[in-house]
Amino acid sequence: MIDLRSDTVTKPDERMRKAMYEAEVGDDVYGEDPTVNRLEETAADLLGKEAALFVTSGTQGNQIAGLVHCRQGQEVIMESQAHLFLYEAAAMSALAGVQIKTLKGERGAMNPGEVEAAIRGADIHEPETGLITLENTHNKAGGAVLPLENMKDIHEIAKKHHIPVHLDGARLFNAQAATGISVKEYAQYTDTVQFCLSKGLGAPVGSIIAGSHDFIKQARKWRKRLGGGLRQVGVIAAPGIIALSENAERLKTDNANAKRLADGLLNIDRVVIDNEVETNIILMNLSDSGMETEVFLEQLKESGIIAGTFGPGIVRFVTNNGVSEEDIDETLSVVGKIVRG
Amino acid sequence: MIDLRSDTVTKPDERMRKAMYEAEVGDDVYGEDPTVNRLEETAADLLGKEAALFVTSGTQGNQIAGLVHCRQGQEVIMESQAHLFLYEAAAMSALAGVQIKTLKGERGAMNPGEVEAAIRGADIHEPETGLITLENTHNKAGGAVLPLENMKDIHEIAKKHHIPVHLDGARLFNAQAATGISVKEYAQYTDTVQFCLSKGLGAPVGSIIAGSHDFIKQARKWRKRLGGGLRQVGVIAAPGIIALSENAERLKTDNANAKRLADGLLNIDRVVIDNEVETNIILMNLSDSGMETEVFLEQLKESGIIAGTFGPGIVRFVTNNGVSEEDIDETLSVVGKIVRG
Amino acid sequence: MIDLRSDTVTKPDERMRKAMYEAEVGDDVYGEDPTVNRLEETAADLLGKEAALFVTSGTQGNQIAGLVHCRQGQEVIMESQAHLFLYEAAAMSALAGVQIKTLKGERGAMNPGEVEAAIRGADIHEPETGLITLENTHNKAGGAVLPLENMKDIHEIAKKHHIPVHLDGARLFNAQAATGISVKEYAQYTDTVQFCLSKGLGAPVGSIIAGSHDFIKQARKWRKRLGGGLRQVGVIAAPGIIALSENAERLKTDNANAKRLADGLLNIDRVVIDNEVETNIILMNLSDSGMETEVFLEQLKESGIIAGTFGPGIVRFVTNNGVSEEDIDETLSVVGKIVRG
Amino acid sequence: MIDLRSDTVTKPDERMRKAMYEAEVGDDVYGEDPTVNRLEETAADLLGKEAALFVTSGTQGNQIAGLVHCRQGQEVIMESQAHLFLYEAAAMSALAGVQIKTLKGERGAMNPGEVEAAIRGADIHEPETGLITLENTHNKAGGAVLPLENMKDIHEIAKKHHIPVHLDGARLFNAQAATGISVKEYAQYTDTVQFCLSKGLGAPVGSIIAGSHDFIKQARKWRKRLGGGLRQVGVIAAPGIIALSENAERLKTDNANAKRLADGLLNIDRVVIDNEVETNIILMNLSDSGMETEVFLEQLKESGIIAGTFGPGIVRFVTNNGVSEEDIDETLSVVGKIVRG
Repeated sequence: MIDLRSDTVTKPDERMRKAMYEAEVGDDVYGEDPTVNRLEETAADLLGKEAALFVTSGTQGNQIAGLVHCRQGQEVIMESQAHLFLYEAAAMSALAGVQIKTLKGERGAMNPGEVEAAIRGADIHEPETGLITLENTHNKAGGAVLPLENMKDIHEIAKKHHIPVHLDGARLFNAQAATGISVKEYAQYTDTVQFCLSKGLGAPVGSIIAGSHDFIKQARKWRKRLGGGLRQVGVIAAPGIIALSENAERLKTDNANAKRLADGLLNIDRVVIDNEVETNIILMNLSDSGMETEVFLEQLKESGIIAGTFGPGIVRFVTNNGVSEEDIDETLSVVGKIVRG
Repeated sequence: MIDLRSDTVTKPDERMRKAMYEAEVGDDVYGEDPTVNRLEETAADLLGKEAALFVTSGTQGNQIAGLVHCRQGQEVIMESQAHLFLYEAAAMSALAGVQIKTLKGERGAMNPGEVEAAIRGADIHEPETGLITLENTHNKAGGAVLPLENMKDIHEIAKKHHIPVHLDGARLFNAQAATGISVKEYAQYTDTVQFCLSKGLGAPVGSIIAGSHDFIKQARKWRKRLGGGLRQVGVIAAPGIIALSENAERLKTDNANAKRLADGLLNIDRVVIDNEVETNIILMNLSDSGMETEVFLEQLKESGIIAGTFGPGIVRFVTNNGVSEEDIDETLSVVGKIVRG
Repeated sequence: MIDLRSDTVTKPDERMRKAMYEAEVGDDVYGEDPTVNRLEETAADLLGKEAALFVTSGTQGNQIAGLVHCRQGQEVIMESQAHLFLYEAAAMSALAGVQIKTLKGERGAMNPGEVEAAIRGADIHEPETGLITLENTHNKAGGAVLPLENMKDIHEIAKKHHIPVHLDGARLFNAQAATGISVKEYAQYTDTVQFCLSKGLGAPVGSIIAGSHDFIKQARKWRKRLGGGLRQVGVIAAPGIIALSENAERLKTDNANAKRLADGLLNIDRVVIDNEVETNIILMNLSDSGMETEVFLEQLKESGIIAGTFGPGIVRFVTNNGVSEEDIDETLSVVGKIVRG
Repeated sequence: MIDLRSDTVTKPDERMRKAMYEAEVGDDVYGEDPTVNRLEETAADLLGKEAALFVTSGTQGNQIAGLVHCRQGQEVIMESQAHLFLYEAAAMSALAGVQIKTLKGERGAMNPGEVEAAIRGADIHEPETGLITLENTHNKAGGAVLPLENMKDIHEIAKKHHIPVHLDGARLFNAQAATGISVKEYAQYTDTVQFCLSKGLGAPVGSIIAGSHDFIKQARKWRKRLGGGLRQVGVIAAPGIIALSENAERLKTDNANAKRLADGLLNIDRVVIDNEVETNIILMNLSDSGMETEVFLEQLKESGIIAGTFGPGIVRFVTNNGVSEEDIDETLSVVGKIVRG
């Protein structure tokens, strides 16, 4: 099977499995797991933050950001197609008791002027804005890279109004791979950052949340409340260290494969690519072909290829470390046959 | 002072004060206040619902609806400019732990097809839709009346998906006054309804929430938790009875005065009316006049007239029982002078 | 009927009704109701606090204290029979997301040493203590007065640990009437105070929450979220002013009547008084009489007297402004007849 | 170092590390990880429940039980020293919005009659009881085994009142090892069960929550909200399978070692054992020795042994798979020397 559904399907490779096998561990609730401590220090350094914390998923990192930054009854501003709004099962309102105010962005980027206009709080009828969240790369916008300038402008507005900024950087390393701008440069414009060790970086489990010492101290207690305080976590932190030290570069391959796939698809009649492919996500629009998405995906599967969907007419392909250049060419050949009937 | 800021400024008249003075009371926590019991029965009858409950404000009624209908982690669909989303200080997310999904409507009315498309829940990443709320008349859309057909269509979709519908009918009686369609006809398309005894109906304090017996039973306990369980509440329920029996008709005058004001304003150069004036709210757009809203309101006040604003360039006038036809004419004369400089 | 169920059943008298009738009002959401402003200033002065806010019930005042003082996930220390724990339908956990840690007190007073030992927070497994609440007079302990010294000691400990103290003073004026210690003297040992204008003070509706300017500012927004932001609230604030200026003294009569009732009951065989009667509450224990509480209350009612219960064997009598010395004597006579069979 | 602080410090052995290394994995969010699926089926079978779910910690399992079983504003009954009340940082009130009502138990077991008396809900002032939780073995009571009969009685009462029962069985397998009563027999008296794969069973990470199909379906979504929805979770599920198949028997050794330690300690003058040692926890009381707990623990550490504390005077020893019979004898010798000075 060529699995293009998501980069979450990546399986740990031999190095990672070996790292797990050999990991030095301890009880992390006592702060005694040397492997997770090393991972957290490495991650904090990479992001230019004071401290970092291992969490079991990107969702957990994002939720902890909401719980630490906000008080219930506040409002959080984010882009209308943010993962946090669409795909975290309303957790931020459920757990932190905040209202989410969405702004329609352009390729995932909110207009800074609109962000400023959306800030509220003085009037008794209004919630105070307690947090602004960004997503880079932006999943629903097709892996779009948030321009550094856009992050800088929004950060400036946020600071002016004393509002923290959190970055959902689940795929931040894909942005770095695409633009050459380091994750640290991106992170400078946010108070806290979450990124995933799973997904393109290839670790089986886990994410990082980073910020100030004080933030991480509070995050640690909220992680405990959510049930993310683990014991001998070194066994899953070990592949995370490899993900950071050896796999960040590799994302360039995923991005190149995605471009190769997109370019090839454009040569197929009645196939439209909805997004500008900057990283590893391709949103292929089938509407002109007259084919039902489900039918297309079914035929694709019969040929040994699986992909996902973002709603009627939209097929999502995500390149990842289990997909080679040859797989891309095979995929192009199969899609061509299916669409041409 | 001619006070056109809101119909919330209405003061109780002689009849209402007399009713308070004479009200027969008891301890409502024991269910022994005959006056509030009478008010609740009257309100339930008018709305065609099994039962009704006195609450201290429209916000309290709306919040109770969220708390009873939803479980935390669900999503509530409402129009993007709903009072519940804009002006209740994020209470529904804070108290009921629900996420709010807004849809941009036309004059306050959401497109039924878009409502259906927005319903979520099966996927593990998605919150279940737990409630749909409507607002009639729609404050931010300038007192727009939600068409009965629109309510019917959304109600049908909701029932198909087993989702309750709540109506924020703070000014539902203004809709009845404008269209001749009874509040009961509107209420048939919602599971629960909230309307205000204050505002145009002129009672000093209070609102009603109505629904099934089971809903009201649960609402009563949530009202207690919110601190809305009062004692000798008959003293404020008494004017509420008058509001219902004697003032519903009177809203036609407010609506007529609003039309008179809107028509007159349209005769003033560089003044635009942003809304189709169906009830008692006028959104006057000053942008073409080059005047700052604050300056305009200040000058208006100096001439003995006060109004509100809905953001830069927008002045909101709300007719109410303290404003006569003569006041309207005086207002037109003053606005004309100010705008003409 | 002689109604001894609670002092919540008190009905507004002629002066109060007249005050409602004549009340000068305005829209309190705009801060324009002169009557409620006057009530709030008077209450703040009486308590020696910077500011005060009218709320619709004692429960609402208590809940707002939790919402402003605490962050979710904290712990609140209170006496095990506190009204807040027993009779507010778990609202503080539901709304503010805090855990309640109860300590068994002596006549409603917690042991200061035990309070200090119960303070938590440093360890990652523990919630931080976010608030300590006291109740004076203590309802479930039979209207027991919290000794000033006890409040002082707990306050000192709280300050040492930077924890705020809230006083549920629903019946604080009954303590003042009993001891001669002013409400201001009691209030000096708490950051915030709630007391009821209804109950013994005789207003039909409403309570006061008082504290610092900053606290009240935040309280005002939380009151709005809970639906306690009213409009022409002057009509119910007016009797509140009378309650404060004219009725605080009158509570001595309630306390004296309670003592008269208790003394009389002690003369009846097989009747035990469970509490030391300091204020207006008597807990009569029927266990020795062999009578079922329900049967006793039923026979009492047939003779025109109603009372309440605090569980099997315990009848609660609460004296109030609707009960005269003659009523007490009548009650004694009736109880005697019933118990003697 | 002989580490007797907790059984949470156990490190994965060679078999477990090999299992991780070889684990077949997939994306569990898509339900495609064969290893975790196998673990969940095995666990459900062992407990006699319809379904089971891997969660990242015992706390997460307990919290999910609260979130699925309860509605906010309800009350949960549990023993006063329950882990859930003491050591989960108030998470159940913070996340599920429920109030916790504690009952003082005898060796961790609540009196069934008192449980029934504590059930609330009909009155408007009261929260409804939404859940009863048990803890077996009971950590704070020194690893006490909850008698099967006690669980049966409480379960019967719960069913009579239509209230679900949840078992915090973090160390349920230690109970099985001690009594020979199977985990399935214990589990029959609860709707849902949580037990830890880490702790005595020796897996590095993870717990199981089990119950009905419907419960697990809802639990899966709440796990996602809390950030416990992992990807290639098979790498940590694999040692979990070994924990269940090979380590449950081994707990008898821990229990025997604990008894050996307890018996030996009793031979030391001025040392008291506070608990009846049934499983792997010993609460040693130092009060009679006049030694400070901190001083004792420091000296113990200097001799290469670490232990924990449960408050002033109380040292907690927990036997585990890293502690041999020789280690026990060494510990006895060291403790003897320290206490004798």
